[in-house]
Amino acid sequence: MDKVLGIDVGGTSIKVGLFTPEGELLEERKIPTPALTSEEAYAVVTSGIIRVLSAHDSVPTDVIACGLDIPGPVADDGTVGFLPNIELDPEGLVGAINAAFPRATVAFVNDANAAALGEMWAGSAQGVESFVLIALGTGVGGGVVSGGKLVAGAFGAGGEIGHITVERNEELTCGCGRHGCLEQYASATGVVRLYLEECKRRGVTPVHVEHATDTLSVFKAHASGDECAALAIDKMCEYLALAMSQISCVMDPQMYLIGGGVAGGFATFAPRLRERFLEFALSPCKNVKIEAAGLGNQAAMYGCAYEALRLRG
Amino acid sequence: MDKVLGIDVGGTSIKVGLFTPEGELLEERKIPTPALTSEEAYAVVTSGIIRVLSAHDSVPTDVIACGLDIPGPVADDGTVGFLPNIELDPEGLVGAINAAFPRATVAFVNDANAAALGEMWAGSAQGVESFVLIALGTGVGGGVVSGGKLVAGAFGAGGEIGHITVERNEELTCGCGRHGCLEQYASATGVVRLYLEECKRRGVTPVHVEHATDTLSVFKAHASGDECAALAIDKMCEYLALAMSQISCVMDPQMYLIGGGVAGGFATFAPRLRERFLEFALSPCKNVKIEAAGLGNQAAMYGCAYEALRLRG
Repeated sequence: MDKVLGIDVGGTSIKVGLFTPEGELLEERKIPTPALTSEEAYAVVTSGIIRVLSAHDSVPTDVIACGLDIPGPVADDGTVGFLPNIELDPEGLVGAINAAFPRATVAFVNDANAAALGEMWAGSAQGVESFVLIALGTGVGGGVVSGGKLVAGAFGAGGEIGHITVERNEELTCGCGRHGCLEQYASATGVVRLYLEECKRRGVTPVHVEHATDTLSVFKAHASGDECAALAIDKMCEYLALAMSQISCVMDPQMYLIGGGVAGGFATFAPRLRERFLEFALSPCKNVKIEAAGLGNQAAMYGCAYEALRLRG
Repeated sequence: MDKVLGIDVGGTSIKVGLFTPEGELLEERKIPTPALTSEEAYAVVTSGIIRVLSAHDSVPTDVIACGLDIPGPVADDGTVGFLPNIELDPEGLVGAINAAFPRATVAFVNDANAAALGEMWAGSAQGVESFVLIALGTGVGGGVVSGGKLVAGAFGAGGEIGHITVERNEELTCGCGRHGCLEQYASATGVVRLYLEECKRRGVTPVHVEHATDTLSVFKAHASGDECAALAIDKMCEYLALAMSQISCVMDPQMYLIGGGVAGGFATFAPRLRERFLEFALSPCKNVKIEAAGLGNQAAMYGCAYEALRLRG
């Protein structure tokens, strides 16, 4: 029986999803790995996958497609760009996968792009031809789908909406080296920073935040009437809505899907986000739907499996 | 012999292009028309076309596709939106064309979108899969092509890049009712306004400008060392480059094509535009090509013909 793999590639582990070609997730398994730059490490990956397969009475030649989602740029032609956050030799890994699963079409997909494809295959965007997934996590990623196809970009920067400039007067430097990127305000890191800064400015004691991306505590503070939290969330909505209004002038999608960790607070911020979007958007674009993404952190695993399957044709 | 029509629809005239299915322009003819809202007006259109056909030994049944480019939004599904600048009953006109040219597939295309398709069919973007045409005319229009296909948009606003917000502090109101749109600075109207404002601010006498969109005089003034003209062109480049850097974060095209009347000064402003783009753009997107569009004001005529032909399959 044909099987499809969707693999989240991380720095210290991979997460393997075993799918039917129809998009049913049969099993999800996390496998710790060394840095993915040696034959030993590739063998950990392939033998781990083979164990998952055999638990479902499947063999390596059952695998017809294998998608790998990675935290970095992948161009329209499949070329993997610079990966600042993980150690990975893409060619080496593909070689090992080709050897172990000879029937499989292999594809790398950027993680936010993969999440968009996953939502299209099995999540909130089924049947939607044009939409933008906005992943509000440690940074802000995006996946743009137009005409039912991913817009990966000529240089792998399609959907890099975290780096839309929304504040030209920002003095803090973004991770990309530029200033005033959406990511500086609408990522989990951004929301927590905006909250702590506002508390400091007002000289009030912030609620305890566990770590630099603990938006949950900020949303809880907001729920109990914390004005600094309200202001941080308001600013996040302002800049996110502004960026969305720019995106709409370019692609005019049918739908925005908000995903990533910050989307845990979607019910809290969605009314304000929609309100600001209506304020900023060009008139015809105001009918766009703004919804929460449905597949959570499984979306990218679904999506890279889907892309590999699609490439197989 | 099969023929294809591309028709620029204006307020007081149409311009008919007669093409071969391979994209060779056989003839271009301007036909004055009444407002396109009555059977009489439709008859002026169809009889005018039939005369063009017969001059090329062709009959109405030779027409296999007929594209109409219009100054207004057309959604992905072909629906024509609100047309502020011309009087046109789209359904009435299509009915008349269907009756006169029974084999023809008919398609409406937004004018800037059509220009992009024209450049892809027969101009500067042949073989380019993803690019953005930026038409700097009375306003600023745009045509976005991704994966070889036009991104018309869910609500017809795909490529409305003239309404990307580039200056949140602008007090003047844009034609769209919003503030700080690219169009306010990078259109012909915008460049002339910036020039005259700067002259006023400095208390210097501007060169004579013929009309509100006479950028030619501003470019000439720049060539003879007029500092106010230099400043106006610099501001145009700044805001245009900023908008382009935002577009690249969304779809990361291979190429930008600059068209419209202002592109007459492309050789003058291109070095500064490229310089500002490199300053604003996200790193991977910096390799994008920035070129002048090749087909001039014939691009839209080519493009709507091409789209109708493409829809025919």
